[in-house]
Amino acid sequence: MTITWTSQGVDGRARAGTLHTSHGEVATPVFMPVGTAGTVKAMTADAVRSTGARIVLGNTYHLMLRPGAERVQAMGGLHRMMDWPGPILTDSGGFQVMSLAKLRKVDADGVTFQSHLDGSRHRLTPERSIEIQHSLDATISMVLDECTPFPVSEDEARHSMELSLRWAGRSRNAFVERDGYGLFGIVQGSVFPELRKRSADGLVDLGFQGYAVGGLAVGEGQEMMLSVLNTTVPHLPHDQPRYLMGVGTPDDLIGAVERGIDMFDCVMPTRAGRTARAYTARGVFNLRNARFATDDRPLDPGCPCPGCARHSRSYLHHLFRCDEMLGPMLLTWHNITYYQGLMQNMRAAILKGAFAAFSAATRAEWQAGDGLQ
Amino acid sequence: MTITWTSQGVDGRARAGTLHTSHGEVATPVFMPVGTAGTVKAMTADAVRSTGARIVLGNTYHLMLRPGAERVQAMGGLHRMMDWPGPILTDSGGFQVMSLAKLRKVDADGVTFQSHLDGSRHRLTPERSIEIQHSLDATISMVLDECTPFPVSEDEARHSMELSLRWAGRSRNAFVERDGYGLFGIVQGSVFPELRKRSADGLVDLGFQGYAVGGLAVGEGQEMMLSVLNTTVPHLPHDQPRYLMGVGTPDDLIGAVERGIDMFDCVMPTRAGRTARAYTARGVFNLRNARFATDDRPLDPGCPCPGCARHSRSYLHHLFRCDEMLGPMLLTWHNITYYQGLMQNMRAAILKGAFAAFSAATRAEWQAGDGLQ
Repeated sequence: MTITWTSQGVDGRARAGTLHTSHGEVATPVFMPVGTAGTVKAMTADAVRSTGARIVLGNTYHLMLRPGAERVQAMGGLHRMMDWPGPILTDSGGFQVMSLAKLRKVDADGVTFQSHLDGSRHRLTPERSIEIQHSLDATISMVLDECTPFPVSEDEARHSMELSLRWAGRSRNAFVERDGYGLFGIVQGSVFPELRKRSADGLVDLGFQGYAVGGLAVGEGQEMMLSVLNTTVPHLPHDQPRYLMGVGTPDDLIGAVERGIDMFDCVMPTRAGRTARAYTARGVFNLRNARFATDDRPLDPGCPCPGCARHSRSYLHHLFRCDEMLGPMLLTWHNITYYQGLMQNMRAAILKGAFAAFSAATRAEWQAGDGLQ
Repeated sequence: MTITWTSQGVDGRARAGTLHTSHGEVATPVFMPVGTAGTVKAMTADAVRSTGARIVLGNTYHLMLRPGAERVQAMGGLHRMMDWPGPILTDSGGFQVMSLAKLRKVDADGVTFQSHLDGSRHRLTPERSIEIQHSLDATISMVLDECTPFPVSEDEARHSMELSLRWAGRSRNAFVERDGYGLFGIVQGSVFPELRKRSADGLVDLGFQGYAVGGLAVGEGQEMMLSVLNTTVPHLPHDQPRYLMGVGTPDDLIGAVERGIDMFDCVMPTRAGRTARAYTARGVFNLRNARFATDDRPLDPGCPCPGCARHSRSYLHHLFRCDEMLGPMLLTWHNITYYQGLMQNMRAAILKGAFAAFSAATRAEWQAGDGLQ
């Protein structure tokens, strides 16, 4: 049997559930830390686990270039390579070909591109993307799609969505079903409700183990993103997982869970950690700020990560001021811990039927804190 | 009572003992990882502990500039700041003023220098160095000395050694004795046996809790360094710890323990780890080397560090090729683990009276391995 998702409770449109996979169970809603090149940057796999994370994401584009899909396979797959026996979701490579590669050219059959690393030529088709994700041993594979840029005309969005739908069908055909593994479709259609509906309906007709909403968080702003979720999510199956790709801030996560999303990934907490930005219960902090030089309080009181439990804001400030690697290490660890705690708290609130109260209280605490927001 | 050292056994000139301090006991011979700015680079304090390390070193020069000695004191001292409740040894700042600072000027009373960071002017005297180390809450403080460069004429070496001896007396007077804390003298005299003897005798007359051999590993080569130890160590007390500063390679450590040295510090294992060099039972490896791209064996079979126990040489190679922080993190961890294991094995061999056999077998394994040496 492929991947399944079971519901444990709903609160409005928000859902608490469990994803059942060949590599273990995952409580939803869930945030997946991004392990681009087979490592969640600046963290050991043990550290990632210690945050409560149970599923991570790998990037097909990066891994196909280095060390190469067949090399990962020879290393025993991505789970073994990165010491992550739990579930791994891989993207299709399409998004990063569009955002990173040089001289990319999309045709009806696929996309040809030059590596951003050495200019070498590569090609991704729906079939090759699925084959690569199989070689990586991805627990959850994603269909190859074209991520529509923003803004875009409705005509262009329609053409792009139709192309993605055809590629989704080819991805579906190429996917080799295995027990506890699965393939997710990706809804496109930019900000146009009719296109989103047509995309969702087409994907559901093909049949996948889960459905992602793609093409968001590309510059449209939070309000429009949530509006697209309002009109898109109702067209997705009620008994399967829903994944909002590449999102987002803690506030985005609350807004999307409120609208029925179960899964998320984003580089934000890891990237922010490397640049001294911390997400906390009291808002966002930039630890490079001089005011922290003499602030000997914990970064986020009550947070169990080592940076908060054993060190002070002044020490973290000192580490960043000295460009010590431990600064990015501890702050990445903290941010992932914060994101995992937020998801766990949202889940608990849904199960208690108290999601609205939880989100209001969480936002009020961010506002009342002395962080940047 | 100040710091004491008790002997558990000798084998030839090699000694196994225990250092008793206010922050716990330390088995010797011991290697102290260098935590320059209040962090062993690329490692959490937990990771450092997991290697078996029980004492670390902090650098007075770096800490007086950032975050400042009084700031460290306000943070509760270096132990609390860096989450290291165990013993910490700090150097006097003298060596790094000579090697890092701009426009330094030594006079009879002390040294004036400009920070290598921002050109700001600072002054170190024996009294100020001891005061700073007190503020840092160093378990073991070091006297301020002038590290004689190499090569140097015997006259210059004599003048420099006499200056260091006067500064040692002033450091001794300035040091505030506290239970389980201590101050070490530093023998200078370059490669001249008579000067080394005079320095050692002068320091012993002053009376310290331990004796360091300084001014070595500055370009004289291993053979000359060991020769200086041969003529210097016999002038040091038999019932107190002996510390060879800034040394060295695994082979240096064996050679120095064989000559009666108990304590070491060196940036080599941490710095090497950040640049892809690994010290192993089978020699030194550069993980950037292309031959490791398809080498799926553990780096150092039997090593308990996460890089060896859970990953492959090919993964470590991949991390360095991608400039992923986890590469330096795992390889630093490995190198410190290797150094700690080497010290523990030397200690066990001394207690069994098998030091010569151990060192011969260890060197043979390095040679027989497929590493660089």
